[in-house]
Amino acid sequence: MQYILKIDCPDQKGLVHEISGILFSFGLNIIENEEFVDHVNNHFFMRSEVVGDAERSEVYNKLCAFLPDSAQIQLHEKRKKNIIIFATKEYHCIGDLVVRHHFGELKANIMAVVSNHNHLQELCEKFGLPFYHVSAEGLARDEHEQKILGIVDQYNPEFLVLAKYMRILTAGFTNHFKNRIINIHHSFLPAFIGAKPYVQAYSRGVKLIGATAHFVNDNLDEGPIIIQDVIHTNHKHDASMMARSGRDVEKIVLSNALKLVFDDRVFVFKNKTIVFE
Amino acid sequence: MQYILKIDCPDQKGLVHEISGILFSFGLNIIENEEFVDHVNNHFFMRSEVVGDAERSEVYNKLCAFLPDSAQIQLHEKRKKNIIIFATKEYHCIGDLVVRHHFGELKANIMAVVSNHNHLQELCEKFGLPFYHVSAEGLARDEHEQKILGIVDQYNPEFLVLAKYMRILTAGFTNHFKNRIINIHHSFLPAFIGAKPYVQAYSRGVKLIGATAHFVNDNLDEGPIIIQDVIHTNHKHDASMMARSGRDVEKIVLSNALKLVFDDRVFVFKNKTIVFE
Amino acid sequence: MQYILKIDCPDQKGLVHEISGILFSFGLNIIENEEFVDHVNNHFFMRSEVVGDAERSEVYNKLCAFLPDSAQIQLHEKRKKNIIIFATKEYHCIGDLVVRHHFGELKANIMAVVSNHNHLQELCEKFGLPFYHVSAEGLARDEHEQKILGIVDQYNPEFLVLAKYMRILTAGFTNHFKNRIINIHHSFLPAFIGAKPYVQAYSRGVKLIGATAHFVNDNLDEGPIIIQDVIHTNHKHDASMMARSGRDVEKIVLSNALKLVFDDRVFVFKNKTIVFE
Amino acid sequence: MQYILKIDCPDQKGLVHEISGILFSFGLNIIENEEFVDHVNNHFFMRSEVVGDAERSEVYNKLCAFLPDSAQIQLHEKRKKNIIIFATKEYHCIGDLVVRHHFGELKANIMAVVSNHNHLQELCEKFGLPFYHVSAEGLARDEHEQKILGIVDQYNPEFLVLAKYMRILTAGFTNHFKNRIINIHHSFLPAFIGAKPYVQAYSRGVKLIGATAHFVNDNLDEGPIIIQDVIHTNHKHDASMMARSGRDVEKIVLSNALKLVFDDRVFVFKNKTIVFE
Repeated sequence: MQYILKIDCPDQKGLVHEISGILFSFGLNIIENEEFVDHVNNHFFMRSEVVGDAERSEVYNKLCAFLPDSAQIQLHEKRKKNIIIFATKEYHCIGDLVVRHHFGELKANIMAVVSNHNHLQELCEKFGLPFYHVSAEGLARDEHEQKILGIVDQYNPEFLVLAKYMRILTAGFTNHFKNRIINIHHSFLPAFIGAKPYVQAYSRGVKLIGATAHFVNDNLDEGPIIIQDVIHTNHKHDASMMARSGRDVEKIVLSNALKLVFDDRVFVFKNKTIVFE
Repeated sequence: MQYILKIDCPDQKGLVHEISGILFSFGLNIIENEEFVDHVNNHFFMRSEVVGDAERSEVYNKLCAFLPDSAQIQLHEKRKKNIIIFATKEYHCIGDLVVRHHFGELKANIMAVVSNHNHLQELCEKFGLPFYHVSAEGLARDEHEQKILGIVDQYNPEFLVLAKYMRILTAGFTNHFKNRIINIHHSFLPAFIGAKPYVQAYSRGVKLIGATAHFVNDNLDEGPIIIQDVIHTNHKHDASMMARSGRDVEKIVLSNALKLVFDDRVFVFKNKTIVFE
Repeated sequence: MQYILKIDCPDQKGLVHEISGILFSFGLNIIENEEFVDHVNNHFFMRSEVVGDAERSEVYNKLCAFLPDSAQIQLHEKRKKNIIIFATKEYHCIGDLVVRHHFGELKANIMAVVSNHNHLQELCEKFGLPFYHVSAEGLARDEHEQKILGIVDQYNPEFLVLAKYMRILTAGFTNHFKNRIINIHHSFLPAFIGAKPYVQAYSRGVKLIGATAHFVNDNLDEGPIIIQDVIHTNHKHDASMMARSGRDVEKIVLSNALKLVFDDRVFVFKNKTIVFE
Repeated sequence: MQYILKIDCPDQKGLVHEISGILFSFGLNIIENEEFVDHVNNHFFMRSEVVGDAERSEVYNKLCAFLPDSAQIQLHEKRKKNIIIFATKEYHCIGDLVVRHHFGELKANIMAVVSNHNHLQELCEKFGLPFYHVSAEGLARDEHEQKILGIVDQYNPEFLVLAKYMRILTAGFTNHFKNRIINIHHSFLPAFIGAKPYVQAYSRGVKLIGATAHFVNDNLDEGPIIIQDVIHTNHKHDASMMARSGRDVEKIVLSNALKLVFDDRVFVFKNKTIVFE
């Protein structure tokens, strides 16, 4: 059996020794291991992939018994995550994800796609994915979200992926899925928060355009950043050309962030991420 | 003789034909030529390097006669620019520039270095550069600037280069050198405007850190951007480590921007730049 | 009407003036223009996008009359190119292209897909693309190519795109489509020519892996390079992990190269390309 | 006291537990730790920074007693390395290093500079560095190396840095400093091995130019690669322009590689490096 172990807790001397000792005592072999100590906050982070025949619950209980109560401990088998994708009209991110999913590359099962428009229905159905068109027309934000939640809750997903979902979610919604909603924002955050980042970028005359994958919390575009990347632009590009050339960096950044999250390589701590690549 | 011609004016049909015709009529050979039309603002930009024996003023006058009054026209021999560098305490940008200057790579003559501290005096003197230590202690901002202006005016420089000069210049000062002051800001503008960008970047948890070379106008960090670049960072880096690793991108971005400006490859138009690389 | 004009010919004084004069004489407005002179070979390259009502053949004839016989001149309406894609088993490049094609982003019509395996048939048929499985089993290289040519010739495509087509084409075949076959090679050419570049890269211990889009000529992997890009790798990645992480750079490099070629922005000259981005 | 521990040995279960247990038993606190297992070669690598009052030799002896005889173990105080720089005529790499050294940023003491030309003498002397001009004129390769060795041996350096030293070293010389000579090669190795890589790059028409920092062994340009980077180039750049624009990437790649090596973050294993960044 191959397990992934994630621990974060206040730092103290001897943690690596004791934790690795517990793993060793169960005959588990560490095939990959990474640690990090945040010396500003005196906090310890560790991720291990281990192989062996030990019973998960026994290892977990022994780790709990040793580590302080405030420790966050995850120990589970390596497996695909269950996700739902939210999208609006743009095809590039979701198109990339459904192709990867179809060929088994995405470390997730796409259980369904939810959209406030029907532009992407045909694409999703080509790939056999349940598609829910939940129009927001004539609905208050809360009403719309309630209809979506009704669908989402049927599936009990582990993560929601906002693949260019162009509506703002309420704090009520995002708190319901704390650190489980991943968004792609089409700028190098914190530059160009909010609407129409490419128009803002064109207007400011920047020479790079970027994309940011981040967890969504209750402040728009201010959640913990997972990864970011940029491409060069220049005076020849107006806002719509920037948007076109930005698509590729958006889709690759989102896909790379998902790989890391679904592979349990990302910790969230105090509005930042620790990413063990 | 090798001349550089820069023209920008409202766009109209036939400009390239007419301008190239004037150059041809003087027997000038175009060895490099670039044009750009900003279709949003209907404005035309052109830069040519030409070789030939024609008299500069005659060519210039004929271009003026043909082009509309609102046209900006520059025609001059290819030559090094006269500059003054402003710095404070950090050595990486100025260190890079003085080495390039010493070996003749910088397309400029450094006439003097001005600093509000004396940390860089020894370095500058090693390379035979006049160094002016103008302490700001006990002086009002205006008084300090007046003392600096007194020095600068002796040299009549074409450009001022702020190589990590950590003081804000007044609008009075910057307007005196419109589009002739180049600054390096240690962030990917417009993210992290103002003081301590690396502290801001660390606090936000970004995964890229950047540098921006821009002209300085009367709004802090809001002048026309020349070039920008970024490097990757991660959770292991605190603000001071970001600052250290950011030094290299700062110095290379500044140096590349200066190459472009001193080689007359940069137009400023409506708070943006057109850069013919 | 919007036309694209491409000219390359031996350089001489006055070319820009004369060519722009001809365009002007037909009332054509230049909306984008780029020139380059290769001073080593004394050769002139120009690409213009022009708008107006002139008759294509009249403009073309006047350009031919003025330019030397050795000049290459193309003048045609801006339109999508007709292409055929060749693939083998890997889905990432073709998956990217069919999604772009489906949503009208690819500047080409995919007329058909040809493969020596059937792994990609289902994907292509989802998107309504004719798929030809031409197994190479039991066939000599020439026989296999003849069967493929039989299919290709029905469609009379302008370009063939090798989207991870893992067979070597004979010189007979490639000469038939001179400068019209575009390949994606999964290395930073000329490093790791030939088979299994990721195995070679792993074995050499490189810290970057790359992808190269190039025209195919009769020497394997030695045709004119269109664009290249790289991503970082490290000691944690074995050859198969490099291959996985290289997929994204391959597909983006191929797609960007195709945009440039299909938009008539690429000249081939003496085994190199001039690319007007 | 702050120590750096480096261990590499055949992998076996329990290594992390035992090693961290030894450190813990001496009251050493791990402030940074990284491990890697090469599963292809079944080899374990570990680097720790630890703080505490333990006696170095006692910790070292206990580690030796536990680990297999074939293990490579380094345990020493964190401190600057003693180095000698070799150069020829180009100033950009050595200029960058002497400025960093002057301001205490380089994690090394430059004990001397050796060159087969005297172009860089003035620069080195400005910074108070002993400069040895050892002309190769009229000398056999071995004679020249013997003269250099005579100088080098006076200083007993830990590393030799070839900062654009344009002569080939004999296997006799390089074996004398196994894994202790660091070179910067001005290409993306293994592309363009040997002389004049920019001329080769121009001739091949590549769209990226690179730089590679590597250890030097007895096969020219085939030693273990430490880091590599690239910048974009295009058809406008001839070989000499590529060389000019390549200077910046060369100097930054060399400087970054030196930081990693001097900070004991690089392991050499079977002609590759493991780099704990």
